[in-house]
Amino acid sequence: VPGLSDPAVFVGREGVRAGVVVTGTEVLSGAVADRNGPWLSERLARLGVEVVAIEIVGDRPAEIRCALEQIGARGVSLIVTSGGLGPTADDLTAAVVAEYCGRRQTLDGTLEARIQAIVEASLARWPGADREALLAGVRKQATVPDGATVLAPRGTAPGLVVAPAPGRAGPTVVVLPGPPSELQAMWEEAAASEPFRRAIAGAAVLERASARLYGLPEAEIARTLREASAAGVDLSGLEITTCLRRGEIELSARFEPARRADYEALIAFIAGRHREQLFSPDGATIDEQVASMLLAARATIAVAESCTGGLLAARLTDRPGSSAYFIGGLVVYANAAKSELAGVDPALIRAHGAVSEPVARELAAGACARLGATVGVGVTGIAGPGGATQDKPVGLVWLAVAHAPPGGALRLRSERVQLAGDRPAIRERATTVALHMVAEILRSAAAGV
Amino acid sequence: VPGLSDPAVFVGREGVRAGVVVTGTEVLSGAVADRNGPWLSERLARLGVEVVAIEIVGDRPAEIRCALEQIGARGVSLIVTSGGLGPTADDLTAAVVAEYCGRRQTLDGTLEARIQAIVEASLARWPGADREALLAGVRKQATVPDGATVLAPRGTAPGLVVAPAPGRAGPTVVVLPGPPSELQAMWEEAAASEPFRRAIAGAAVLERASARLYGLPEAEIARTLREASAAGVDLSGLEITTCLRRGEIELSARFEPARRADYEALIAFIAGRHREQLFSPDGATIDEQVASMLLAARATIAVAESCTGGLLAARLTDRPGSSAYFIGGLVVYANAAKSELAGVDPALIRAHGAVSEPVARELAAGACARLGATVGVGVTGIAGPGGATQDKPVGLVWLAVAHAPPGGALRLRSERVQLAGDRPAIRERATTVALHMVAEILRSAAAGV
Repeated sequence: VPGLSDPAVFVGREGVRAGVVVTGTEVLSGAVADRNGPWLSERLARLGVEVVAIEIVGDRPAEIRCALEQIGARGVSLIVTSGGLGPTADDLTAAVVAEYCGRRQTLDGTLEARIQAIVEASLARWPGADREALLAGVRKQATVPDGATVLAPRGTAPGLVVAPAPGRAGPTVVVLPGPPSELQAMWEEAAASEPFRRAIAGAAVLERASARLYGLPEAEIARTLREASAAGVDLSGLEITTCLRRGEIELSARFEPARRADYEALIAFIAGRHREQLFSPDGATIDEQVASMLLAARATIAVAESCTGGLLAARLTDRPGSSAYFIGGLVVYANAAKSELAGVDPALIRAHGAVSEPVARELAAGACARLGATVGVGVTGIAGPGGATQDKPVGLVWLAVAHAPPGGALRLRSERVQLAGDRPAIRERATTVALHMVAEILRSAAAGV
Repeated sequence: VPGLSDPAVFVGREGVRAGVVVTGTEVLSGAVADRNGPWLSERLARLGVEVVAIEIVGDRPAEIRCALEQIGARGVSLIVTSGGLGPTADDLTAAVVAEYCGRRQTLDGTLEARIQAIVEASLARWPGADREALLAGVRKQATVPDGATVLAPRGTAPGLVVAPAPGRAGPTVVVLPGPPSELQAMWEEAAASEPFRRAIAGAAVLERASARLYGLPEAEIARTLREASAAGVDLSGLEITTCLRRGEIELSARFEPARRADYEALIAFIAGRHREQLFSPDGATIDEQVASMLLAARATIAVAESCTGGLLAARLTDRPGSSAYFIGGLVVYANAAKSELAGVDPALIRAHGAVSEPVARELAAGACARLGATVGVGVTGIAGPGGATQDKPVGLVWLAVAHAPPGGALRLRSERVQLAGDRPAIRERATTVALHMVAEILRSAAAGV
């Protein structure tokens, strides 16, 4: 299959199972979105551990205990918790886990000194802080279950790996802090610890692979799967899921290594049926593809965006190293800005409106010219909820891409889309459409079309 | 308490409890972040229903059933599910819920006709689609539990409200589709349905309020809470949580209406202790404050940003109506773009480097001048992971804000911050710092300082 690279080796659901318990009233109440559950699930999968559930509960000890009991009852070998390790009195996860594992808690003097050193260093930055209050927090954070493996604090909170007390059954519990950067920094040490390795011993490795399609309704891919099966592709050993994501379809599969040929046959069948739409048989995102194509062509890119308000530039710069190809962007919200910054003829705006094909084309050409980039993108649309007119509804977006290779002729393509969803969805989907247009113009330029 | 407005009336944990079950292997595996759990939790709270847990499970019927059983066993009156209502064979939530509620499933002819009409309309947009495959999906989506209240489809999937079969105990289950826009559009109808109202009858209303602080370590607020208590503020009737969010501390409280005076006394105590840091006693975000101040001053804003790559412009435009004050932005990634678009003297960049105070100041002044805005913001920093030097580590960001009222003198302030976290965290926190600087310069301008 052309373009089907080796998948990342993910890990499977044979045998070893785990659960994730995310604690925090602010997460349960919807005030803060949880980032730890999905991250932990993906990391556990890489280790061959199937996650059976991610459960979010409040800060109250009874709720945390109930979640541990219920997930523990599903035959998991490991439970990973996040949150509730801070210095304040409502952070109680370590105490609840100690009780669940049948272990007492003791103040760890070495750990106390270590956390205290971190806190003393930060006192320099907060000259008004109360030293005594901070030290009380240190003692709380240094009080840990007997026999637990202590993970070095990244903020001030140490992590813990707590096996059940001798003679007691149940999962080993990995206790991690809530801030995602601290949790992530602590993960490798947790996964390498002796009680963790013991708990997941025997995890079987499954492979995982994914592919992406653009410009196809989800029901179509379901039909194609049925037809592949009818045409003799053996899907019985593939666990397949499809989902819509940012305006694309992502197809994911997990399988035993022996079933790889079946997966490749499926992708070949899909490629035959949806050649235009299967832009990523290897699961690479359109962001990755655009970055690679720009680097390969030694091309640069600039944008002039209105309704997306900076999101397209932000998406093009969210990858490290993007300064190699991203030159800059113009966020041209006001009509005067469209003209002065991107060079859009004010007469065009008067004649066709700001959301129109001619304006999108001048934005793209203007981004190229003003920033000296090989590729320029123009986006103008109505993100809503206001701003719609009789013939220009919310969700209408005009996009254009200009390609001006050094010494070559300017090529300009434009497209009108009608996007569904609310303001954030429309803004985000418009960036996806823009990236696909960039990929297409770079692909046809590379092919000399 | 000055600035303490009436809080949104949220609702509480007395009596009526609910659980949320989010289904989807793509969510459980970490491929897609769940947005429905937090949204549903917040909506249920407004109705006086306490959410005891949000559980994310895979697409497999046994897992969904297990989650329903376990959450059902916690004494909840209502369970809300999201996901698994699509047209494909791996979408099985409705069938599992029917079984859990003791009800058979039947093809609903009226519903079938209704979904078919939606699908026929979309066929026009997908000329290559297979009509038969789509109609098979329609029949699957129109097969619903006997006696269920059907919620009108927003995409193609109908929602359901399913009470236990006559003579059977257990919670009522609300079955909603996975795409957040469809789920949200269906919510009001679900909450108004007769079985939903019956399930939550008697929910007691608690109030909820929040406040925000900036520039304070989290342990400090814990100390202040202890001191407030010691000084006689009665905290016993307040359920308080604090969390760090985008570089700010958010303090949230839930309380019975009779305890409002205690909450107000607490906020007054905090205001006395942290007058500078308590920028929002009423919970308004810095985004809301900046928007209000710009509107009140009839001021406009423009930005010139480097390391944040468009995120500051995107944040300033994510609110509907932002075109009233946001003129535009310059995303000046390359040094040439900094000079050509924002007018930064190339000699300054050579002398001090792109990440420096003089460059931040010229970016701010350039944003003002080039876009004709009252307020200009300049941001330049090292988001990492690469790009650090001996004296300019990852996380170093220089920011400047210029204020140029019509006919008034230009005021320019700059600030150096050292931000913690990974590339996305540094980029996001830099936008928070920028907004606080904008608020400060507008506040002092309004005060005539």
